[in-house]
Amino acid sequence: MAETVALLGGGVIGGGWAARFVLNGFDVRLYDPDPDAERTVAAMVDNARRAYRRLTLAPLPAEGALTLVATPEEAVQDVSFVQESAPEREELKRGLLAAASRAAVPDAIFASSTSGLLPTRLQAAMTHPERFTVAHPFNPVYLLPLVELCGGERTVPETIERAADVYRGLGMRPLIVRTEVDAFVADRLLEALWREALWLVAEDVATVAEVDDAIRFGAGLRWASMGSFLSYRIAGGEAGMRHFMEQFGPALELPWTKLTAVPELTDELLDKIVAQSDAQAGGRSIGELERVRDDCLVSVIHGLRSHDQGAGAVLAAYERALFAAAPAAPAAEDDAPLRLHTAVVQPEWIDYNGHAHESRYLQMFGDATDALLRHVGVDLDGGSSYFTVETHLSHVGEARAGERLGVTTQLLGHDEKRLHVFHSLHRSDDGALVATAEQMLLHVDTRAGRASAAAPELLERIARITGVHAALPRPERAGRAVSLAPRARR
Amino acid sequence: MAETVALLGGGVIGGGWAARFVLNGFDVRLYDPDPDAERTVAAMVDNARRAYRRLTLAPLPAEGALTLVATPEEAVQDVSFVQESAPEREELKRGLLAAASRAAVPDAIFASSTSGLLPTRLQAAMTHPERFTVAHPFNPVYLLPLVELCGGERTVPETIERAADVYRGLGMRPLIVRTEVDAFVADRLLEALWREALWLVAEDVATVAEVDDAIRFGAGLRWASMGSFLSYRIAGGEAGMRHFMEQFGPALELPWTKLTAVPELTDELLDKIVAQSDAQAGGRSIGELERVRDDCLVSVIHGLRSHDQGAGAVLAAYERALFAAAPAAPAAEDDAPLRLHTAVVQPEWIDYNGHAHESRYLQMFGDATDALLRHVGVDLDGGSSYFTVETHLSHVGEARAGERLGVTTQLLGHDEKRLHVFHSLHRSDDGALVATAEQMLLHVDTRAGRASAAAPELLERIARITGVHAALPRPERAGRAVSLAPRARR
Repeated sequence: MAETVALLGGGVIGGGWAARFVLNGFDVRLYDPDPDAERTVAAMVDNARRAYRRLTLAPLPAEGALTLVATPEEAVQDVSFVQESAPEREELKRGLLAAASRAAVPDAIFASSTSGLLPTRLQAAMTHPERFTVAHPFNPVYLLPLVELCGGERTVPETIERAADVYRGLGMRPLIVRTEVDAFVADRLLEALWREALWLVAEDVATVAEVDDAIRFGAGLRWASMGSFLSYRIAGGEAGMRHFMEQFGPALELPWTKLTAVPELTDELLDKIVAQSDAQAGGRSIGELERVRDDCLVSVIHGLRSHDQGAGAVLAAYERALFAAAPAAPAAEDDAPLRLHTAVVQPEWIDYNGHAHESRYLQMFGDATDALLRHVGVDLDGGSSYFTVETHLSHVGEARAGERLGVTTQLLGHDEKRLHVFHSLHRSDDGALVATAEQMLLHVDTRAGRASAAAPELLERIARITGVHAALPRPERAGRAVSLAPRARR
Repeated sequence: MAETVALLGGGVIGGGWAARFVLNGFDVRLYDPDPDAERTVAAMVDNARRAYRRLTLAPLPAEGALTLVATPEEAVQDVSFVQESAPEREELKRGLLAAASRAAVPDAIFASSTSGLLPTRLQAAMTHPERFTVAHPFNPVYLLPLVELCGGERTVPETIERAADVYRGLGMRPLIVRTEVDAFVADRLLEALWREALWLVAEDVATVAEVDDAIRFGAGLRWASMGSFLSYRIAGGEAGMRHFMEQFGPALELPWTKLTAVPELTDELLDKIVAQSDAQAGGRSIGELERVRDDCLVSVIHGLRSHDQGAGAVLAAYERALFAAAPAAPAAEDDAPLRLHTAVVQPEWIDYNGHAHESRYLQMFGDATDALLRHVGVDLDGGSSYFTVETHLSHVGEARAGERLGVTTQLLGHDEKRLHVFHSLHRSDDGALVATAEQMLLHVDTRAGRASAAAPELLERIARITGVHAALPRPERAGRAVSLAPRARR
C-alpha cells in the first residue's frame, strides 16, 4: 500500500511538492484554505507529470492519489511525514505547525518549505519540536533537485537524516545547512543577485530582458553545472585558486565593492518592471512559459547526465534506484511476443520532416534489446554481453512527439554465439505498427574482447523462449532485403 | 584569403579569443610580453578545438593561423579589428590602446575585454577614439556566447554595430549596454552573488563546495535558460508579475535587505578558501576540470538548442549561417562514391559496451543521407523530401569516442519515387570499414503529406549520378537479409 504524506499549503511550492510526491507513488493528503486549491493543485500535478515523463523513462512506482482535506489536523492524521508550504508569515507558520503537531503522531517529521524564516522560531510552539526541520525547495519543485535542510536549536540530528532520506527517494539533493542564518545559503545568493538586478532596472542601466540575457547567455550556462568557486578555480588556470583570489587586489575589487545599496520598491519601479516583464513575455501565457522552462530544464539535466555531473548525476542515481526497485518482468509472458520496453517520443527526437529521426527508432529498438538481455539474464557485470552485428529496419508509420510507443519482441532463432530477434514498435494508443527491426546479435566476452559462446544456463533460457516463440506466426517483414524489385506478398 | 585580426594579451581571456577567431577562420596576430605565451595560447587553442568540434558539426571555415608577434604595433598593422585583453589595470590598458591606435589604420575597431573599467577613460588617449568599444566576454570565451558591448563618450554608434556584427559571425550574442557603469550589467550580477558567497564562507555558514552545490542543484539550472525576471514571472503564476513583486512587502524583503557588508579578504579567509577549493577539486587538475566544464557547457547548449532557447538558439542561428556559407560539394566527385559527410564520435554516444550506441551509427548515416539530398538538390523548403522506408545496417567494426569517421555513398538505383543508396562508414585515420547502411528512400510531397514522384529535373540529376555509379563495383553487403543460415561468399 502506498505511504501517505501530508502537505499543508497548495500554492506554487505546495503544488510542486504534491506533484513530486504523487509521481513518486505517495498518496498525498493536502490542506489549503483556498476553495480553488483542488483545481489549481490538480493542474500543477498534470503539468508536472508532463515534465516528469520527459525527465525519466525509468520505472516509476504507480502514481499516488491526491486528496484535499478540510483541516490541517485531518491532513496530518497518522502520517509519518508533513511538508508545510504556507505563506511566508512567521506567525501564520508558527500557529499552523503548532496546531498540526498536536494532531500528528509524535515521531512524524515536520518539514517547512520556508525560504528564509528561522527554524528555532518556527518550531517554538510545536509539540515534539525535535522532529522539525526547514526543507527549502526551489521552483519548479518537481524538477530542481536542491532542498536545503536546516534544523533549529531543538531539532535532533536524526530528524535531518530521516528527512534527507525521504528527499533522496524523490530524486532530490539535500544540502544540509549547519548554521541558522536568514535565507540559508541558496536564497542569500539568489537575493544578492536579485537586489542588484532590481537596482539595474531602477537606474535604467538595463531592462528586465537585458538583465536576463546577461545571465542566460553567459554565467548562467556555467552555473547549471558548476558554482562560482569551481568556475573561478578553472579561470585562475594552473596558477591556482590562491593566485586567482589574490587578484582581488586594487583592480578586481572595484566592481565587487561598488555594488549599490538596496533599491526602494517604489510604485514607479513596480510599474516599470511590470511593463518590461510584459514586453519580455511577448504575450506568452504563464502556462506556455512554464512549458518552455520545464522543457529546457529537462534537456539541461539530461545534458549533465551524459557527463554524470551535477543535477545529471542526481538523476542518474535516482534512476538506478528506480530500476533496482522495479519488479522483474513476469516470465509467464514468454508464450507471446515479449513486451519489455515502452517509450514516449521526446520532442527533441523530431527532425525537420516533423517526425522522429530514423536513428531514434533504432534507439528504442536498442533499448528493447537491452531489456531483452536483462530479461534472459545476461550477466553484463560478469563480462557477458551481446553486440548487434546486423539490423534491418522497416518504417511503416511515423512517430510524433509525445506519443507513447511499445516494443514487442519475438526470438526467431539462436545458436551458441548468435541470437536472432524481431522487434515490432506499436503506438500504444491504437496499436498501430510504426516500425520493425530484425536483428542479429553476437555474444561477446567483454573481458576478453571477442565473440564467444554464451554460458550454458543462458543458452538454456534463450532456447526455452525461442522454442515457445517458434509457435508464433513468423513476422511478415522477417528475412527482408532492401530491393527495388517488386516483392512477392508472403 | 583569411582576414587577420590583432589580439593584445594572451591570458585566459586573450587565449579564448585566439581560439574563437582561429576556429572561425581568422588569422590571428597576437602580442603578449610573456615569453611563455606562444606555448600557453597554443594549448588553449587545442583545448578549445576539442570543445568546438563537439559543439558543432556545421561546416566551419578552414582554421586560421596563429602568429605571435613582438610588439603591439606589429600586431595591429593593417588589420581592421583589434581585441585588447591585457590585465585589468587602467593605466596599462590606456597606454597599450593609445600606442596601438597610433600604429593601426584609422578605422580599425578597437575592442577591450575589460570586465569593469569605463570605456570613456580607456579611450581617452587613443587616436580615433570613436572606433573604441568595450567588448566584455565570459570564460570560456570559445563556448559562452555573451559579449557585452559598451561605448564611451567619444564612441560612435557605427563602432558598436560593426563590432556586434563581428561577434555574431563568431557565433556570439552581443548585449549592448547603453549606460557606462562600473562592471556593466553581467559582472554586477556575478559580483553581487560572489560577494555573498565570500561572506558565507568567511562566516563558516557554508564551504565553497556547499555554496557551489546551492547554485548548481537549484537556481543555476534555471539560469542556463532563463534569467531571474522571467523565472519569477512564472513563479508568480497566473496572478502576474505585479502580484509577485508586491509580495516583496514585509515578509519577502527580509532576506533581500539583510545581505551583509563586503567581507574583508583577510589572509585567514584566503587560506580557508584555498584549502576548501583544493578539497572540492579532489585532486583533479585544472585541465581535467576544464574538460568537465566544457563538456557540460556543450551538452547544456545542445539541450537548449533542441528547444531553440537561449544559447541554444544562438548556436542554431550560427550553424544556419555556417551551412549557408559552406561551398557546395563539388559535382566532379560523382564518378566515385560520394564523400558528403564526416563526423567525430562524441563521448556521450558511447554506451555501456564501450563503443558508440547502435543508434548513433544510423544517426551518422541519416546525416549522410541529408547531405546527399542537399547534394542532388532536393528542394526541402519547397515541399519535396525523401523519407527512409527501409535500412539494412551491418556492423563491421566499433566506433570509439573521439574518432573521426567519414561516409561514402553509392547510388544503387532509383525510380520515380524511390532512391536506393548504399553508405559505408570508414575510420578516417586508417580507412577501416566500421559499418554499412543500405537504404530505400521514398520521395514525399511534404505539403500534401504523401509519397509522390520526384520533379523531373531532380530525377535527371539522380539518374546522372546513378548512371555513373553503376560502373562502380557493387558493395559486398548490398542486398543482404538477416539470417542464421550460412551465407555463400559473393
